[in-house]
Amino acid sequence: MDYTYLLLLAVVLLSTKVFGVLTEHVHLPQVVGALLAGIVMGPSGFGVLQSTDFMVKAAEIGVIMLMFTAGIDTDMKELKATGVQASVIAVLGVFVPLLLCGGLYFAFFCGGEFTAYNLLRSAFMGSVFSATSVSITVETLNEMGKLKSKTGTTLLSAALIDDIIGIVVLSVLSAFSSGDSDPVMVMVRIVLFFAFVLVVGLVVRRVFSYIAEEHWHSRRVAVWALGFCLLMSYCAEAWFGVADITGAYFAGLILCNVTKARRFVAKKFTVTSYMVFTPVFFASVGMKTNLRDMNGDILVFALLLVAAAVLSKVAGCGMGGLACRMSRHQSLVVGIGMVARSEVALMVAQRGINAGMIDPSILPAIVLAVISSALLTPVLLKMAISKGPELA
Amino acid sequence: MDYTYLLLLAVVLLSTKVFGVLTEHVHLPQVVGALLAGIVMGPSGFGVLQSTDFMVKAAEIGVIMLMFTAGIDTDMKELKATGVQASVIAVLGVFVPLLLCGGLYFAFFCGGEFTAYNLLRSAFMGSVFSATSVSITVETLNEMGKLKSKTGTTLLSAALIDDIIGIVVLSVLSAFSSGDSDPVMVMVRIVLFFAFVLVVGLVVRRVFSYIAEEHWHSRRVAVWALGFCLLMSYCAEAWFGVADITGAYFAGLILCNVTKARRFVAKKFTVTSYMVFTPVFFASVGMKTNLRDMNGDILVFALLLVAAAVLSKVAGCGMGGLACRMSRHQSLVVGIGMVARSEVALMVAQRGINAGMIDPSILPAIVLAVISSALLTPVLLKMAISKGPELA
Repeated sequence: MDYTYLLLLAVVLLSTKVFGVLTEHVHLPQVVGALLAGIVMGPSGFGVLQSTDFMVKAAEIGVIMLMFTAGIDTDMKELKATGVQASVIAVLGVFVPLLLCGGLYFAFFCGGEFTAYNLLRSAFMGSVFSATSVSITVETLNEMGKLKSKTGTTLLSAALIDDIIGIVVLSVLSAFSSGDSDPVMVMVRIVLFFAFVLVVGLVVRRVFSYIAEEHWHSRRVAVWALGFCLLMSYCAEAWFGVADITGAYFAGLILCNVTKARRFVAKKFTVTSYMVFTPVFFASVGMKTNLRDMNGDILVFALLLVAAAVLSKVAGCGMGGLACRMSRHQSLVVGIGMVARSEVALMVAQRGINAGMIDPSILPAIVLAVISSALLTPVLLKMAISKGPELA
Repeated sequence: MDYTYLLLLAVVLLSTKVFGVLTEHVHLPQVVGALLAGIVMGPSGFGVLQSTDFMVKAAEIGVIMLMFTAGIDTDMKELKATGVQASVIAVLGVFVPLLLCGGLYFAFFCGGEFTAYNLLRSAFMGSVFSATSVSITVETLNEMGKLKSKTGTTLLSAALIDDIIGIVVLSVLSAFSSGDSDPVMVMVRIVLFFAFVLVVGLVVRRVFSYIAEEHWHSRRVAVWALGFCLLMSYCAEAWFGVADITGAYFAGLILCNVTKARRFVAKKFTVTSYMVFTPVFFASVGMKTNLRDMNGDILVFALLLVAAAVLSKVAGCGMGGLACRMSRHQSLVVGIGMVARSEVALMVAQRGINAGMIDPSILPAIVLAVISSALLTPVLLKMAISKGPELA
């Protein structure tokens, strides 16, 4: 038996934490540290880390657990109370980046040919940048005492809907990229998948509510939830050809209604993720970010992608705000607040690579754009809030 | 990409929990349920579960995390306060089962040939049954209000030392079975390993104590501990040819001195273990327990092994008690209290199979003996305590 995987896993855990400490010292998000660990220890750098079958699978489980957690952390009450305003902001905030970032990719890499494959590749690239990560914004708003403002709550609701629309877009793209060329069949599969989620959801929610009534604090509930989450991921992928992470997200969304066990389950998932699986995922994205493949073309594309990623969210969400009669200042703040991308963007990129829709050589550009968006958000947000009138 | 591993993992998690509920209903330990799940869903039963590379590695990480937890849960104060009595009980409690169960194997499967290979195989089989699992006894004594009695505390101390001697024996056997035929070199490697543990221990304990001073409740400490644990497992295996689980146990033993972070780290390990890795380990032992290989010989051997496993601990520990001037009744209670085997025995068996020292066809007998010992302990213990004089 070869024991190298123990060494590799140890290096992943230790290096992501060392780089995490370093990036924290200069006030960068921990994700950046974990990505850097993968870049520095991987093929681009010292070459200590290699991608093995075990690593690939552990990383995928990491993605699945993250998406489940995103689902189960959804505040259903808030989602139901969401008004037209937040929905319009979310829709425009998904589709403007989809068009702009996708269009940029098309212009650069598709030679002007409107084939189905080229459009699908471009749409995949666009969908990477359609998913907002709101945690950095929440932190910044909280720090400035603006989280409970009207603008702040609208922003949070919009981010919730943004997640769901993003997931639906990803499902559609995944279904189209899974080899089946007949668009009607693909649409049928997607519809069947959502019907499946609905039926399973109704049953499983009841079963879990019943179990949770007495045993909500039992280890068993958390393990059952993980089993269910993996099963949904498998079914989404193997039966319907939509992404496994879509299945995981909906598994989480179904269980977010089991109020009694919800927090306990989410906590156990979080511990298991950060102990092993999430570091492996981030490090593996870093490892794939092969800087040696970088050339002039990709560098120019990367810089334009950063601009497109940032501006498209500001424009999309800002237009949404204006359309719903928010003030220009409020619209700008909402737009900037939705700029940051993080885990979900990286997961969609990972998914695109697995599906053969994103060329791994583009990954450095994607990682750069994701990191830049996360770094720029708090800076821009503070400027926009402090330079304008008092935020309502 | 093949997503079957998600399905397999889901089946492992769900089936071990379903069988766990069933065995709990008839007051059997959960481990029995998890083993049964592996037997029923594996090649012996429905054949749904197969052993894949991912499963094998996840199971090994499960073993490593269990051994680390055993190490970090060691109560150093109690260990230091342990008297001659507990030590004598532990030593006899390790070596009598080693001789008796090993001898039984020799008599059955070695055709009377005293070759080094045969002796090593027999010793491996013996060492499987030298490790006590005291948790069932603790539960029983607690229930009867005898845990704080003199006999109870002696029993617990003896179980602590039992673990350490068992680990040392395993290291020696592993080192001898790792291909190097020169006994002097093997002894040198073992000595070097313990010197390595000592030096690393002194350094790492300081580093962790320093970090834990401020950050004992930070996720990072737990992840660092896991990194360290995996690194020690790898070094033990790859550099010194002693078992990876020995490395993991000593990693835990080193960190059990970091009083501030200890409980936090142990908790995070426990959650990560029971969420994913431990069920995979137990199910994989169950899967290897191929009942279709059973024949008359192995069945007879299995029944004798049950008797040897139980009687050798009662005799060994009981003699230890008598030698230290405990009463006959106290000695009997101590002996019975040490009978139960569980995880550690299965881990050593797993290790023996990996090292080519235990034939997988014997596994059903081992699993039967381990389960029987765990089931008999509370019954015998209650009888011994209630039928004798008041326990001091």
